[in-house]
Amino acid sequence: MKFGILKEYDDQRVAIVPEIVPKLKQLGLEILVETQAGATALFSDKLYQEHASVVSRQEVLSQSDMLISIHPLSDADLQQVRKGVLLISQFAPFASPGVAETLHGKGFQAFSLDMIPRTTLAQSMDVLSSMAGIAGYKAVLEAARLLPRYFPMMITAAGTIRPAKVLILGAGVAGLQAIATARRLGAQVEAFDTRRAAKEEVESLGAKFVEVEGAVEDTAAGGYAVAQSDEFLARQRAEVQARAAKADVIITTAQVRGTKAPILLPKETVSHMKPGSVVVDLAASTGGNCELTQDNAVIQAHQVTIIGNSYLANLMPQDASVMYANNVLNFIKTFVKEGKLNLDMNNEIIRGAMITPIPETQNA
Amino acid sequence: MKFGILKEYDDQRVAIVPEIVPKLKQLGLEILVETQAGATALFSDKLYQEHASVVSRQEVLSQSDMLISIHPLSDADLQQVRKGVLLISQFAPFASPGVAETLHGKGFQAFSLDMIPRTTLAQSMDVLSSMAGIAGYKAVLEAARLLPRYFPMMITAAGTIRPAKVLILGAGVAGLQAIATARRLGAQVEAFDTRRAAKEEVESLGAKFVEVEGAVEDTAAGGYAVAQSDEFLARQRAEVQARAAKADVIITTAQVRGTKAPILLPKETVSHMKPGSVVVDLAASTGGNCELTQDNAVIQAHQVTIIGNSYLANLMPQDASVMYANNVLNFIKTFVKEGKLNLDMNNEIIRGAMITPIPETQNA
Repeated sequence: MKFGILKEYDDQRVAIVPEIVPKLKQLGLEILVETQAGATALFSDKLYQEHASVVSRQEVLSQSDMLISIHPLSDADLQQVRKGVLLISQFAPFASPGVAETLHGKGFQAFSLDMIPRTTLAQSMDVLSSMAGIAGYKAVLEAARLLPRYFPMMITAAGTIRPAKVLILGAGVAGLQAIATARRLGAQVEAFDTRRAAKEEVESLGAKFVEVEGAVEDTAAGGYAVAQSDEFLARQRAEVQARAAKADVIITTAQVRGTKAPILLPKETVSHMKPGSVVVDLAASTGGNCELTQDNAVIQAHQVTIIGNSYLANLMPQDASVMYANNVLNFIKTFVKEGKLNLDMNNEIIRGAMITPIPETQNA
Repeated sequence: MKFGILKEYDDQRVAIVPEIVPKLKQLGLEILVETQAGATALFSDKLYQEHASVVSRQEVLSQSDMLISIHPLSDADLQQVRKGVLLISQFAPFASPGVAETLHGKGFQAFSLDMIPRTTLAQSMDVLSSMAGIAGYKAVLEAARLLPRYFPMMITAAGTIRPAKVLILGAGVAGLQAIATARRLGAQVEAFDTRRAAKEEVESLGAKFVEVEGAVEDTAAGGYAVAQSDEFLARQRAEVQARAAKADVIITTAQVRGTKAPILLPKETVSHMKPGSVVVDLAASTGGNCELTQDNAVIQAHQVTIIGNSYLANLMPQDASVMYANNVLNFIKTFVKEGKLNLDMNNEIIRGAMITPIPETQNA
């Protein structure tokens, strides 16, 4: 069975890095890699060549039985792919309704990596988590870069500089990694989350957990935040505004799957922030947690710099690709045995990720 | 006596921040501030107005008895300044021979802050040190931003990421702050310095000190590196090259006062570096420690990103201005008493910094 690795466009990462290729071969797969697939992630064709055939995009598309890409293939690409091929990508069916039906209608099978259940067992396959961790790390670095102040406390002969105050809204994977990174750099960190379970994690990283009463919890939401009542949101906004006025950096990470991100920083809150302070909005792609955020742009408002970017992992393409590839390998191990597909519908990971119907013949 | 604070051009900092103004008033000075002087450092005119008169540039230039600026005034500006006025700036007489004579010829007195002796006593006035510390901190942030990898070790469900390897060339103030910051971010750090005295400081920050035998030491060089023998430099280059090949980030800080910076990273060394690695050359303005450095530019060579920037403090203008202003205040306290100049030539700080002859009448 031929496994094809494609070059991404508008993304510096690659889904499979060279060190993972021999591990895929051990599963009985024959590997095709598109020329220059790893170039922007700093992996040369030469590194792939030892265990894989490096060929043109057209050859990868037309000859593979399984195709991996970080972003879904274009319609033009799909026209070159044979029917029955298994596509592995992030199809985001919640954000793109109908995508599964379309792929099935064209005769493809599709695994959507973003649909892998966010359970302990599947943690090693969770691309959303590994990329979110990178986004949280990079968010702090981008903020530290644009902040006109030091992050750490500095006790010097030229006087004492107080540590920067960092406020993190949403203590999921991205938020926790942002807390850890801001703490590493010596900042004072406060974090909000509607899930009370986040309190212990936040505090274990040396940050203060800010509680707002009356949050709706939903442990079935798979790590996503859930929609909250208007009363809760009003209380949360008031609490956020009071703390935002004292913050040097705010990093927002609150996304609700399949719907627009909640506004946690309205215009008015931004107008109360200190001149020179920085907001990094990781929810920019779904509308943003800050009302003033522009997706994929850095803007200035009320002397505050607002960075709208939900794809910061793309700015650290080498390690992002390494982690992504490890996630993919762990996932593939669940359904490829001795070069054959073994799609066990009793496995909740496979059931969760497969967005097209599973043909009877491949069912174990 | 009127003390004038000017707005900088091509620099976001300001020499005196609002919180320092009342302290200057306590010395008996009347303070004039140019409109918008602190704007790019995030200090509004309103913050200055409580204790100072905010006026036009022309008024500051024509009415002040003492003038402070980070960068020396242009000839056009100087034409508006009265004879006998005391100019405080960084005149860099080693790099600009004749500057003292020119200023004296025009009838000015001049203190060059970069000529304050780098002694323990004068540490609180040392603008070179406080700005170098910021440059070291920012150098690591810039490198971390452009590196396609994580700095910290990451042990995650998606595998273990090794910490980044950072090599620091020159363990003066900038180098030490770079070490501290890279360590904060979890990198493995090695540092070189020709001064063996640096070893203890480097090691106390958790970095490895790399020794090269046969360095010339000169404790009288005031914290600058001194010129080294060809044999030593060849040994150093070989040692650097071996370590550079394994490094993810190299930060170079070696400047020799009054002459071109030594080349520590020749082209060939860069060609041995890992794809995606990053060099930050803080000696760029004096020719650079890396042969490929272009001053004030970020370039790519051999898949290595090379940042040439000796003025990184400018990118953190608020705290940089706070520290600069504290330095200036501490310096001014040594020679202003009850609103009058008291230029004690027995004071080595005053003797070192004054680059024009001291008029007899002002001598204490």
